[in-house]
Amino acid sequence: METLCAELIAVGTELLLGSIANTDAQFLSRELAGLGISVERHTAVGDDPQRLREAVEAARARCSILITTGGLGPTFDDLTKQVVCRVFDRPLTLRPEVEETIEGIYRDILHRPMPESDRLQALLPEGAELFPNHAGTAPGFAFCSGGVHVLMLPGPPEECRSVWEHGAREYLRRLSPGVICSRDIMSFGMGESSVEFLLHEKMCRMVNPSLATYAKPSEVCLRATARANTAQEADALLDPVEAEVRAALGDLVYGVDVSGLTELCLQRLKARGLTLACAESCTGGLIAQRITALPGASAVFRGGVVSYWSSVKAGVLGVDPALLETHGAVSAPVAEAMAKGARAITGADLAVSVTGVAGPDSDERGNPVGRVFVALADETGGVYCRHLELGRRSRELIRDEAANHALDLLRRHLDGLPMELTVPELKKG
Amino acid sequence: METLCAELIAVGTELLLGSIANTDAQFLSRELAGLGISVERHTAVGDDPQRLREAVEAARARCSILITTGGLGPTFDDLTKQVVCRVFDRPLTLRPEVEETIEGIYRDILHRPMPESDRLQALLPEGAELFPNHAGTAPGFAFCSGGVHVLMLPGPPEECRSVWEHGAREYLRRLSPGVICSRDIMSFGMGESSVEFLLHEKMCRMVNPSLATYAKPSEVCLRATARANTAQEADALLDPVEAEVRAALGDLVYGVDVSGLTELCLQRLKARGLTLACAESCTGGLIAQRITALPGASAVFRGGVVSYWSSVKAGVLGVDPALLETHGAVSAPVAEAMAKGARAITGADLAVSVTGVAGPDSDERGNPVGRVFVALADETGGVYCRHLELGRRSRELIRDEAANHALDLLRRHLDGLPMELTVPELKKG
Repeated sequence: METLCAELIAVGTELLLGSIANTDAQFLSRELAGLGISVERHTAVGDDPQRLREAVEAARARCSILITTGGLGPTFDDLTKQVVCRVFDRPLTLRPEVEETIEGIYRDILHRPMPESDRLQALLPEGAELFPNHAGTAPGFAFCSGGVHVLMLPGPPEECRSVWEHGAREYLRRLSPGVICSRDIMSFGMGESSVEFLLHEKMCRMVNPSLATYAKPSEVCLRATARANTAQEADALLDPVEAEVRAALGDLVYGVDVSGLTELCLQRLKARGLTLACAESCTGGLIAQRITALPGASAVFRGGVVSYWSSVKAGVLGVDPALLETHGAVSAPVAEAMAKGARAITGADLAVSVTGVAGPDSDERGNPVGRVFVALADETGGVYCRHLELGRRSRELIRDEAANHALDLLRRHLDGLPMELTVPELKKG
Repeated sequence: METLCAELIAVGTELLLGSIANTDAQFLSRELAGLGISVERHTAVGDDPQRLREAVEAARARCSILITTGGLGPTFDDLTKQVVCRVFDRPLTLRPEVEETIEGIYRDILHRPMPESDRLQALLPEGAELFPNHAGTAPGFAFCSGGVHVLMLPGPPEECRSVWEHGAREYLRRLSPGVICSRDIMSFGMGESSVEFLLHEKMCRMVNPSLATYAKPSEVCLRATARANTAQEADALLDPVEAEVRAALGDLVYGVDVSGLTELCLQRLKARGLTLACAESCTGGLIAQRITALPGASAVFRGGVVSYWSSVKAGVLGVDPALLETHGAVSAPVAEAMAKGARAITGADLAVSVTGVAGPDSDERGNPVGRVFVALADETGGVYCRHLELGRRSRELIRDEAANHALDLLRRHLDGLPMELTVPELKKG
């Protein structure tokens, strides 16, 4: 199987000033991997014709697919097309159908006359295949010259994606043999370094399929990737890897090819026809926000309370003021009462709650940063609480991990698993 | 003023697979701009010694500062140090103080024996200046060879930042003459393309200071940047630019050098000694989450209700069921009642509310995707509502923009400005 090799060149001074991250490179790299195309280099240069020219010439000598992003707009510093066409010695010609599309966008959507400069966007390399842009005015396009396929895509991420989906992906799919399939094995409850420690030798040894960790703030995704002639062959390579990871991590693995604990919980609740509510103190709405970010959340999520002040815990959630007085707001009894309260006032089947100290300072009772209680009130009236000591980490990490622990309680309840997190012993696997 | 010119080389196959974005490059570029150092190129290569060697050799010929990120860890594929030292012909020597630090981390923090392979991390280029890493085991370091300053930093973002702050920044500050100062002029209420249209000629004309737009999902930051010998000189260059932008955008400009509307509102509430609550339907906790993400939020934010279901709007916020019946949940009267209800049940001085259709589908009453009502209940018992038609955009963008409109109502109230958004006419400035 011959491997196609690609390089990405991003053009834009805003990248070199650090105003934006090069997320186009990440997006395209992931997509190219999925097509079985190996990416060998990312380059970013500014809106400078000489440096861009050097970068394009060097890449042309190394790769069979060159993809540029950015610099296709109508302004004086958008010069990618001119420079690339000079390197590949290909004239630019006016494409009337592109001109018409851009005029239409100004007339029908932007409701103002098309600036003369926008006509530049209708100049395309002779014979180029056109990829429409449904998110902006500059289309993408591709041509082949001297054995190198050159694809030019706009820089703004949503435009880059639109052009990718409306032609660029298909152009490359026609070139590439075989498939690369990935499987994301999702786990919660163990840090990336511990997961790596546990699976280290396995991860080093394997080439096809390969196994790599990919950490989100408090979850670890293990991505197994296989290259094969067909998807079926790739699956046959991936099945034993998934089985080995599951054997090593036990019920810390919560799903495969799901985006996170939030999505998993939503799927499970829908399947079971159960509704959810939440009561959040230190996470401040993070759990509710994550759930409602997913389309279809309204089928199962009734609502929640952000009880940041104790008066709101008592007044809105109905937490007994005596409990708050005796144990303090950061305590297991209060976490349990919050979850029960959220369930009671919303009528939901299940409710999760979080109370704790996200920092940067310890609370007035001396609870240290990172002390958090998460609880689940279930449909039988029962309640379960988990006590966490997350340590002196950033506010953001503590909130993120606390939210995930609450969702972990929920998925364990829904899947009928033990509520305790059982972390495998750290001996090399 | 001589300009120092830097290139960044990131090393790691995970970048080329798209598993992570090259956020180190963004972070470092921004920091380097602040030191008056011009970044001319970003490159990312995989864990491949031959390609890394080519990239380092090419960069050495072009720049006076070369910064690498990644590939400093203890595993077999971490080879940046070996390759770079071969190119610059500098031997690696064992640094006992580094070895001791790494052993200490394993002993005192990770509670397991140091793997033999970790000793590799104590090998440093002869004569290198050491930058401690408070977030991991691999330190950063720098040396100068043939007029090129080479800095090598670890790849994980928090480690890269730690090493930057504990020595790398200071190393470069000693080299660089003059300063680059930036001012972020923040605006809300007009899209990036309209802002650019309005300020287009100004933005093209200017070199020092320069002016560039930098869009977040629904806010636009105008970054003015000046290069000068001193901060005072830079300020004198920036003042008239800020004045011109304010003249063009009017009260859409809400602040300077503040991270967003959320931070601005928090500052204003603290200064005025007022407390806040919120009631969210389609934003689902996004406003509460954003506010509580900021340290010190508890001084002003009492709490909120995520009233996703109508039964929660009625039962928890006390919205009159007749209003819900007559006008539907997505309506001005319900938005106003939600804000009043949040204020009443939490005892806060002010409350904001949001109700609308985030999509992907219109609601059961036929309200289209993007129809949103945001309201503010103020300390006098008054209430103000803004009706939005945000159009068929992604769920994420609609939620983000709706949250910002609610915060815009709040800041207009706190700053004593007209509550209406007045968008400047689109003629070129």
